[in-house]
Amino acid sequence: MDFENVTAALAALSNTEERLGISHHTATPNINAVAEMMATIRRVMLPGFFDIERASDVSRLHHVGVDIEHIARLVRQQVAYSLIFAGRHDCPERCSEADDITKQFVEALPAVRDLLLTDAEAVMLNDPAVSNINEVLLSYPVITVMLHYRVANTLHRLGVPVLPRIITEMAHSATGIDIHPAATIGHHFAIDHGTGVVIGGTAVVGNHVMLYQGVTLGARNFERDDEGHPVDVPRHPILEDRVVVYSNTSILGRVTIGHDSIIGGNVWLTRDVPPHSVIVQGKPIERPTFTGGAGI
Amino acid sequence: MDFENVTAALAALSNTEERLGISHHTATPNINAVAEMMATIRRVMLPGFFDIERASDVSRLHHVGVDIEHIARLVRQQVAYSLIFAGRHDCPERCSEADDITKQFVEALPAVRDLLLTDAEAVMLNDPAVSNINEVLLSYPVITVMLHYRVANTLHRLGVPVLPRIITEMAHSATGIDIHPAATIGHHFAIDHGTGVVIGGTAVVGNHVMLYQGVTLGARNFERDDEGHPVDVPRHPILEDRVVVYSNTSILGRVTIGHDSIIGGNVWLTRDVPPHSVIVQGKPIERPTFTGGAGI
Amino acid sequence: MDFENVTAALAALSNTEERLGISHHTATPNINAVAEMMATIRRVMLPGFFDIERASDVSRLHHVGVDIEHIARLVRQQVAYSLIFAGRHDCPERCSEADDITKQFVEALPAVRDLLLTDAEAVMLNDPAVSNINEVLLSYPVITVMLHYRVANTLHRLGVPVLPRIITEMAHSATGIDIHPAATIGHHFAIDHGTGVVIGGTAVVGNHVMLYQGVTLGARNFERDDEGHPVDVPRHPILEDRVVVYSNTSILGRVTIGHDSIIGGNVWLTRDVPPHSVIVQGKPIERPTFTGGAGI
Amino acid sequence: MDFENVTAALAALSNTEERLGISHHTATPNINAVAEMMATIRRVMLPGFFDIERASDVSRLHHVGVDIEHIARLVRQQVAYSLIFAGRHDCPERCSEADDITKQFVEALPAVRDLLLTDAEAVMLNDPAVSNINEVLLSYPVITVMLHYRVANTLHRLGVPVLPRIITEMAHSATGIDIHPAATIGHHFAIDHGTGVVIGGTAVVGNHVMLYQGVTLGARNFERDDEGHPVDVPRHPILEDRVVVYSNTSILGRVTIGHDSIIGGNVWLTRDVPPHSVIVQGKPIERPTFTGGAGI
Amino acid sequence: MDFENVTAALAALSNTEERLGISHHTATPNINAVAEMMATIRRVMLPGFFDIERASDVSRLHHVGVDIEHIARLVRQQVAYSLIFAGRHDCPERCSEADDITKQFVEALPAVRDLLLTDAEAVMLNDPAVSNINEVLLSYPVITVMLHYRVANTLHRLGVPVLPRIITEMAHSATGIDIHPAATIGHHFAIDHGTGVVIGGTAVVGNHVMLYQGVTLGARNFERDDEGHPVDVPRHPILEDRVVVYSNTSILGRVTIGHDSIIGGNVWLTRDVPPHSVIVQGKPIERPTFTGGAGI
Amino acid sequence: MDFENVTAALAALSNTEERLGISHHTATPNINAVAEMMATIRRVMLPGFFDIERASDVSRLHHVGVDIEHIARLVRQQVAYSLIFAGRHDCPERCSEADDITKQFVEALPAVRDLLLTDAEAVMLNDPAVSNINEVLLSYPVITVMLHYRVANTLHRLGVPVLPRIITEMAHSATGIDIHPAATIGHHFAIDHGTGVVIGGTAVVGNHVMLYQGVTLGARNFERDDEGHPVDVPRHPILEDRVVVYSNTSILGRVTIGHDSIIGGNVWLTRDVPPHSVIVQGKPIERPTFTGGAGI
Repeated sequence: MDFENVTAALAALSNTEERLGISHHTATPNINAVAEMMATIRRVMLPGFFDIERASDVSRLHHVGVDIEHIARLVRQQVAYSLIFAGRHDCPERCSEADDITKQFVEALPAVRDLLLTDAEAVMLNDPAVSNINEVLLSYPVITVMLHYRVANTLHRLGVPVLPRIITEMAHSATGIDIHPAATIGHHFAIDHGTGVVIGGTAVVGNHVMLYQGVTLGARNFERDDEGHPVDVPRHPILEDRVVVYSNTSILGRVTIGHDSIIGGNVWLTRDVPPHSVIVQGKPIERPTFTGGAGI
Repeated sequence: MDFENVTAALAALSNTEERLGISHHTATPNINAVAEMMATIRRVMLPGFFDIERASDVSRLHHVGVDIEHIARLVRQQVAYSLIFAGRHDCPERCSEADDITKQFVEALPAVRDLLLTDAEAVMLNDPAVSNINEVLLSYPVITVMLHYRVANTLHRLGVPVLPRIITEMAHSATGIDIHPAATIGHHFAIDHGTGVVIGGTAVVGNHVMLYQGVTLGARNFERDDEGHPVDVPRHPILEDRVVVYSNTSILGRVTIGHDSIIGGNVWLTRDVPPHSVIVQGKPIERPTFTGGAGI
Repeated sequence: MDFENVTAALAALSNTEERLGISHHTATPNINAVAEMMATIRRVMLPGFFDIERASDVSRLHHVGVDIEHIARLVRQQVAYSLIFAGRHDCPERCSEADDITKQFVEALPAVRDLLLTDAEAVMLNDPAVSNINEVLLSYPVITVMLHYRVANTLHRLGVPVLPRIITEMAHSATGIDIHPAATIGHHFAIDHGTGVVIGGTAVVGNHVMLYQGVTLGARNFERDDEGHPVDVPRHPILEDRVVVYSNTSILGRVTIGHDSIIGGNVWLTRDVPPHSVIVQGKPIERPTFTGGAGI
Repeated sequence: MDFENVTAALAALSNTEERLGISHHTATPNINAVAEMMATIRRVMLPGFFDIERASDVSRLHHVGVDIEHIARLVRQQVAYSLIFAGRHDCPERCSEADDITKQFVEALPAVRDLLLTDAEAVMLNDPAVSNINEVLLSYPVITVMLHYRVANTLHRLGVPVLPRIITEMAHSATGIDIHPAATIGHHFAIDHGTGVVIGGTAVVGNHVMLYQGVTLGARNFERDDEGHPVDVPRHPILEDRVVVYSNTSILGRVTIGHDSIIGGNVWLTRDVPPHSVIVQGKPIERPTFTGGAGI
Repeated sequence: MDFENVTAALAALSNTEERLGISHHTATPNINAVAEMMATIRRVMLPGFFDIERASDVSRLHHVGVDIEHIARLVRQQVAYSLIFAGRHDCPERCSEADDITKQFVEALPAVRDLLLTDAEAVMLNDPAVSNINEVLLSYPVITVMLHYRVANTLHRLGVPVLPRIITEMAHSATGIDIHPAATIGHHFAIDHGTGVVIGGTAVVGNHVMLYQGVTLGARNFERDDEGHPVDVPRHPILEDRVVVYSNTSILGRVTIGHDSIIGGNVWLTRDVPPHSVIVQGKPIERPTFTGGAGI
Repeated sequence: MDFENVTAALAALSNTEERLGISHHTATPNINAVAEMMATIRRVMLPGFFDIERASDVSRLHHVGVDIEHIARLVRQQVAYSLIFAGRHDCPERCSEADDITKQFVEALPAVRDLLLTDAEAVMLNDPAVSNINEVLLSYPVITVMLHYRVANTLHRLGVPVLPRIITEMAHSATGIDIHPAATIGHHFAIDHGTGVVIGGTAVVGNHVMLYQGVTLGARNFERDDEGHPVDVPRHPILEDRVVVYSNTSILGRVTIGHDSIIGGNVWLTRDVPPHSVIVQGKPIERPTFTGGAGI
């Protein structure tokens, strides 16, 4: 096949695009390596749940030892790529910073695991269909989401750019739950079903909070600086302890939902709510006559 | 790299966590084997739609024969692992139970396929963008969802624990549609777009029902037993024949939506509705003045 | 294992199903080939973002040349399969039509890329959490969606059946955003979070439009022809330039949302709206007393 | 890295080389497809020896049916490529010729298998270390060689160019045994160890012949035509029934080794030998004094 | 394609072949699992030579621990399959026998490794082209051969059928060196180049022996029992310590080559040789006139 | 399974072995990367012979450009590893040396290709079974061997340690032909069949030389230095132009075979031979009576 204009297309596509500040030459974190990193972290945190071959009691220590070495190698590599991608460092400097971050990350893994198990416990306590925690750990999407969020949040707090977002996007794609890595979330956090849940980067969520599918903890609007760029200030809600939010509700802006409140489904909420509140949608309308056709 | 505290992390992570009843040593169903099982079932049910090499008329019987043997092997294996994982059986007993279940499952496959084709037919009849059923079978996510649900529901009714949930979660991850394997759903069931749809485990859905994206058939609340554990009683809606529910509406609790009713979008509905009803959201408010900024 | 009724199942499943017009013998587009086609197109459009090995300045032209040849080969093959699948052509005729389409598609790639970069720019300008466009291109799901939509829409406008839908479904599965390939969308189009967004096939979206998660641009109802089949006429909304729609709102039917309007979240909207309008949900109800239990 | 002369290398290497009649544009048989073809043929001929999953009695017919269809598809494809590669045909003509060859090849498979089993039987009868035929079929390299030779010879006799040689070279690489596909070999043919065995294309080997490692049945010289090209005439030995040839012996030229003869090892033999002969190497020399050093 | 006689071929090929005692239903050792087993054993014996990621000093113990567990699992599985294949056991009995063998095999690994390193040392001491032992361990085929032989011989001495032969055949295919697993070979054994070397099952090789390519330590003939089956008695040579045999020499029968002897190349030797002997081939003949042509 | 002595085995195996100078911590060339490097070099040298997708005339330059970049990257990486493995360099110094070598290697590729094509031409001219050069390039093992040798020899002459040997060993394993990378071989070099051929590192082979299977150009003995280590001095034969050596002959020591000589098969030759000589093995012995049994 001879494409008459293929040469023009070739020339157009092989020109680098610099108008928008796109760079083609930097290192980038690699999605496959991040996926392997997360799979290895999951294996260390939930040993035996995803392996065909089961480690014996004798050999579990060896498996974890090998896995931690592998995790450290992958984390250090992807952190270094992220620092370069973000333009923060070039090679010589990055090494020691990536080493430090990796060291702190590995040391934090047991605490991350403890938090993750509180989330699983919360799910178990709030779902009548669950018979034991093993079933939750094996098959509930919220475990995937919280594993990714808690790892990403740890890296975010250690100052790693870009990589945390890639980690939470992997969970977003798999589960439909989009938690920004910078969000602050307490222990015993449960989400049921979860598709469509969005938690913004400056949201603050207390302990024992429960969300259902389609809940948004979002921004109402955002300020722009003198050059018209949006500014990254606190703009997402605060949910205090033991708040429950039902499906498809949007809570927007830097509002505070007081502890022990219940927010019903399909609500659009942009103001503060005192503790122990119960909020539901206005009454739906019943149309007296059926007008035919498939629609309404 | 020498991690000063890596030994501590290693010790912490290689300790099994028994506080919450987590077991590390049992067999578990394996996600990759389940994926292969479902792909083989799909090939038997929709022959020629997903294969590069097309079977001739002469050899179709051979292909199906080989596939059924492979399905039986995988189902028996994963059912056995599920029985062990759920603590219901150890090896010798499990064999005959897994054998019985597998036998009944294979015998049920033609009926499952007939139901699945009614679903495809319903989609075709309700989507103006569709030109023929082959297009639906090839590319519509609802086919993936209903294949997984109908297989999972069959296994659930045969008494298999855990595995049905894994099967529906696979479809949930791929499509954003979360149908509990214990839900009861009639023939000619259609979902359009579907992301965010949730159908709870005690929901009962009639024939010729149509749902749009974001619809929840959920629980309003749940009872707890004396020890505070939630109890698995009927708590999700009943939708009678020919009900249509539009996008992002939540129907919660053990309510009944009478046949031939239409429920509009973005409604929060927690009460019974008689047949032939039409329900829509209360009127939105038009704010008289535009206040500037990107938000509202 | 001997299945007593396995022979019956085998016979039932190896019979082709012709009742519904299902054909088993035609060619079908292949999902794996389409995935490879899209990955190669992405590499040509966003060079260096997803590769482990980085091309030098000298060799970038060679890489793009090899990739374009590979894209052309895959597009031609899958277009031909799609034409056959849709019953529009058999082999000899199809060749020249598939060749023509492929030629025009390759020539259109630079323009598609320019549009895609306006979308990335729009995201960057509307998200306070973004520091530069490279981060958007690397990790935001909207890039995946718009890459797939803009490629699928190009193929749709060239008259290719089935394949465009497969391409947008791949993005739908990965992101929860469901844009019909026939929809018309202007430049600088941004979606944030996006899970649950649905844009119907006859929707018309202007320039600089912004949508949040869960927004539906859907049909209110549809006409049927004399035989009861739904008819494919304009039935989805028109959004003029600079419209913003917040999370979980449904806009249904052939209504027009005037330019510079803002539609709040969780609204059910089925009527025209003039330019510069601001629309929000009716006020939620605050229930005075808390009734206990986990529900509401 | 900037290679100063890389442009020159690039130009030199991307020029096609036509001096020697090398063509770059024709179709070629593909080694991976041939490997898959041979693996499938082996599975049909020796069912159960190389599979992890064992077919039941019920399903063996289905497995063989699927495998034969796959073999036919691969054979037809590779035969067509071979005909094109050899310049014998272009596409339209080739189809029917490749179809005919494939049909005859599939029909010949049972006879090929019967011959192969006589070879296995002969090995078993001549190796004191063997306990049963299953062990031979599972692990003896001569089975690989004879499977490849007998398939290649069948294709050669059906007039297929190039492909037979590729098939025997695969076995040559795996076992060190190089049998030309055009050679004529009777039933019950055994080779022990075999590395270094060479059997030329015009060799004729009777029934119940046994060779050891390193035996050459080669050409002594060859005639050239007026243009200096070698001519393909009978130039390799004839071994009559029940001949045994020991290790590392070379028999060269169109000589006849009479039936029931034994040729000892390390012999260089270029003349006819009557039936029932026994031929051994001339006596080695014993050097009276040891001269030191590691050599001789 | 319709094959007229394909049904006949199908029937012929799906009939099991029982004439020769071929069994289709037993378990068989699996070549891929054996390959993985050998790769893991090699990694444990030669750590760091074949891995991309290098273990730190801290983690080497963990790596070896994980590898040994994996080796034990694979060995036990393949030993069990071999016992079944050989008809020696069915499932319940086999378990404990396979367990015992596996236990003894793992305990023997350090001794096997010590022997293997003496072989590498012997190669280094006899090849002027070698600069250090690491080069030998990394790239010399004799290391592959001796690793496989010494592992296979260990399993053979533990009573495992079939599997040892599969292990040595893997090395035979890769290197052209065919050592029977039952052969007895001392320490510091070296082979240079090696293609075509054959060492029979009852051969006895002392310490510090060196062989070159093409050397056969074979049988001259073999006895048959009353039913005509060959009998497995000592029939291969004995080479005492420090014997060197040059290329392509065949030593056949139960003869003894005395210690410190040197046997030249291309010799056919079927008698005992006293210690310190030097044996070479009879003088070649120089033909006085050149007769033209390419041959001789 | 509890291995009583597994801890001892573990300890023994995880101790590094330093007695023999084995190092565990250095970088090593990686066999898989070398295999990919050689496959890419082959594709550049013989374009279209081993690819399923054929490059068009327009895109051949692009393919070669991409391949050369890939080759350069792999060569530089493996050369650097080899320099480290051989203890010649650590990281900073190695970079520039590896860069220089890579640059010279890429520049040498066209010349290497020209030589390789003379070898193919020589094979074609000496094999009556060949119809054209494409068949040789596609399927003759000598092409594999000479490609590997000529690449390895180029790297050897550029001073690269270890890697050349790995490259020739790959060909040795695939073909049974063992050519040392340091050997000197002229143009138009042909080997037929080839299994068992050995060419030592100090051998010098002229132009238009032809060898048959099993030919050894080896060392007769070797000198040792004062510490008993063998010394790497010229010790292999010199074959002048147009020499032919028949199968299984061993020519040993620093002897010279004069131009235009023919050496018959199975000869053991350790002395100089003048030009135009013809040498054959001494006459075999015919034993007058057949003594029965299977042997001789």
